[in-house]
Amino acid sequence: MKSANHIPHIVIIGAGFAGLYAARSLAHAKVRITLVDRRNHHTFQPLLYQVATAALSPGEIAYPIRHIFRNDENVSVLLAAATGFDLQNHKVLLDSGELPYDYLVVAAGSTHAYFGNPDWATYAPGLKTVEDATEIRRRMLLAFEIAERRARLNQEHSPINFVVVGGGPTGVELAGALSEIAQHVLASDFRSIDPRSTRVILIEAGPRILPAFPAELSISAVRQLQKLGVEVMTGKTVTGIDGAHVELGDQRLAASVVLWAAGVSASPLGTQLGAGTDRAGRVHVQPDLTLPGHPEVFVVGDLASILQEGGKPVPGLAPAAIQMGKYAASTILRDLDGESRKPFHYFDKGNLATIGRSSAIADVRGFKMSGLLAWFTWLFVHVLFLIGFRNRVQVMWEWFWAYVTFQRGARLITGQSRSIVPLVAGEVHEQDMMDDDVKSRKAG
Amino acid sequence: MKSANHIPHIVIIGAGFAGLYAARSLAHAKVRITLVDRRNHHTFQPLLYQVATAALSPGEIAYPIRHIFRNDENVSVLLAAATGFDLQNHKVLLDSGELPYDYLVVAAGSTHAYFGNPDWATYAPGLKTVEDATEIRRRMLLAFEIAERRARLNQEHSPINFVVVGGGPTGVELAGALSEIAQHVLASDFRSIDPRSTRVILIEAGPRILPAFPAELSISAVRQLQKLGVEVMTGKTVTGIDGAHVELGDQRLAASVVLWAAGVSASPLGTQLGAGTDRAGRVHVQPDLTLPGHPEVFVVGDLASILQEGGKPVPGLAPAAIQMGKYAASTILRDLDGESRKPFHYFDKGNLATIGRSSAIADVRGFKMSGLLAWFTWLFVHVLFLIGFRNRVQVMWEWFWAYVTFQRGARLITGQSRSIVPLVAGEVHEQDMMDDDVKSRKAG
Repeated sequence: MKSANHIPHIVIIGAGFAGLYAARSLAHAKVRITLVDRRNHHTFQPLLYQVATAALSPGEIAYPIRHIFRNDENVSVLLAAATGFDLQNHKVLLDSGELPYDYLVVAAGSTHAYFGNPDWATYAPGLKTVEDATEIRRRMLLAFEIAERRARLNQEHSPINFVVVGGGPTGVELAGALSEIAQHVLASDFRSIDPRSTRVILIEAGPRILPAFPAELSISAVRQLQKLGVEVMTGKTVTGIDGAHVELGDQRLAASVVLWAAGVSASPLGTQLGAGTDRAGRVHVQPDLTLPGHPEVFVVGDLASILQEGGKPVPGLAPAAIQMGKYAASTILRDLDGESRKPFHYFDKGNLATIGRSSAIADVRGFKMSGLLAWFTWLFVHVLFLIGFRNRVQVMWEWFWAYVTFQRGARLITGQSRSIVPLVAGEVHEQDMMDDDVKSRKAG
Repeated sequence: MKSANHIPHIVIIGAGFAGLYAARSLAHAKVRITLVDRRNHHTFQPLLYQVATAALSPGEIAYPIRHIFRNDENVSVLLAAATGFDLQNHKVLLDSGELPYDYLVVAAGSTHAYFGNPDWATYAPGLKTVEDATEIRRRMLLAFEIAERRARLNQEHSPINFVVVGGGPTGVELAGALSEIAQHVLASDFRSIDPRSTRVILIEAGPRILPAFPAELSISAVRQLQKLGVEVMTGKTVTGIDGAHVELGDQRLAASVVLWAAGVSASPLGTQLGAGTDRAGRVHVQPDLTLPGHPEVFVVGDLASILQEGGKPVPGLAPAAIQMGKYAASTILRDLDGESRKPFHYFDKGNLATIGRSSAIADVRGFKMSGLLAWFTWLFVHVLFLIGFRNRVQVMWEWFWAYVTFQRGARLITGQSRSIVPLVAGEVHEQDMMDDDVKSRKAG
């Protein structure tokens, strides 16, 4: 038995949307909270593609976690990686120690899934972290630079092809933004190549892109993408990826840069909770989002597998994660007040996907929109949910400026990729070149 | 003999201040210009320390080179590394080909110098590139995170010591900004440690810091630094650096993070020009900044060694580099117009060094200032020279916001350092931890 003046300690693993909102909802209660994450920042993932495509800087969509909670004395933020659980003794195992808890909220999220082809990760980065985004940005910008140099120095005119694998919201956003960059942003920046001749190809294995939307909106999205210059291929399964090609059965596409937006799987931490998982690695939870036999352990966000009314799974979207995080927090508070639990109920606010400049689709409780109106809805919702006032003003300004001028300011090629794989076929040394500065410095 | 309608081709190596201003000054003339750089962006180096100390984002001080010249049809930008010269045949050798020139402007700049101790580079990064700045930011923020975690999980209270080696303008800026972060910015963000107990130590081998300034301003700078909480040690030579210590002869300082601001040497490209170099590797040039026997080859910026009137060397500062770049451009244009050459004359506009919030020193043609007035002068000059309107507005906004709120928004720990050296003594796995996301993605 805990003593009467024991202040309950709640450990939250992961500061994505689910974990962050759980912590926020608990911050004003008489509890102690420890929020653990492997990164020092919360990443506003819905806008990550804007960093990958050079419209926003990392600092505009990533925010230091401990700064978010600086005024909440009962919230303690810990930079550490959870490695496992001792559920019997109410302890989380960390790489650097262990943490006892009264309640545990596991919100470890998801990562890319390459469907049994781990080697594709090298050639086709996905988009989950700030580092992913800057790596994609680097490859994309470097493809233009290399083509320009070849044209200038060797009179070789090698076409630039961007291939995006996966026709979900992230793939559509990336494809639309890449086309916009090639058609408008970079159009007048090069002398020996014409960026407007760049091909952007979006590949979807299923019969239509954006399958979570009504069919008519998928059709509208294809039309909007084509207007932006994107080639959409559906019903094509990727069977191979190397440094210069994407294979679709016996079809072979040349690819300067390949981006992966085709699948996610839940954090491997989920399998350590002892409950069953679905085929994407998500943990089967009770109607109150807890582990069977462990009412003190909540699993929320992308890591949780639960059905909504009607039998469809709750989708892996930010609004669902936020609702689950808030639900776990309020259920803990009801417990502490001696009230009974209610099951989690997912409120479907609608579905939004942006395609490009003034292009989007929206399905808000049966009300379907596409084009400019959908785009403004998307803009409004995303700016509204950005964490922190400073970022909101700045991001609005960036967007306004980019919209008016067609320019993207954050076009930096940075980083020191140590990959030995040629970024663009035949250009083995490109990546090394970017390291020269660092190397010569290290060499003395 | 060139034909009468031959348009002269000017190759510029390096898009730092000297190369950039040479290109800008030539952009409206009847010449063709090829600007070659290993990076795709110009870095506004005077504000790089603000990225290193999390006040600004990389995108705010680095600007895509080809975007700067997007409207100058006669300027072609090439991402490539110069590897040598064929002066006889008027060709620059690149890693990826070669470029013929009629005039050559070599503005390859400088890099860190560790005075024969190349292994120190791993423990004590310097500040020349955007990657350097984000690496310093990462180490600095990680030091606080590690201390917090140790205090929380292991009840260990390990002091945080930042050691900055080198009392020139960069060392002083870094020390001042680090102290400000510890004393103000992070003060309320941690629960288990008090960032205000952080020590910031500035080490200078010479008898006084900022030796390029009059002695009375050096004294004022020390006083302003001490007011910010920085400990200043002069007359101390660093004899050893490892992952946890800095050695000063028989004195051994514990150091969580060591930063190197003690010396630069010219780009190794300088030695390939065949002319003599001084002990910092800078090329001895003629009064018109050209190589002896090669009036068509200019060496400008940090790579050039030349004396000003009075016998003092022209300093390695942005204004000197800008003046040299403009001079090379105008001399080329005089040549083409059949006019005779005039020697380069350095116009000393004065010397500015910022120390921290409202703290700076300035020596403008004998008029000495320190404190708030000097700081406003510094602010005005630096915002004025920022390339590109968008950045200027944004940086002003960032500064205003940081000034009013004492906050720094760009506090991201990013990057995947593969260093096997412990960042902070005894924490060998820290850096690896940050890679987990990437690793698990690549593995699965």
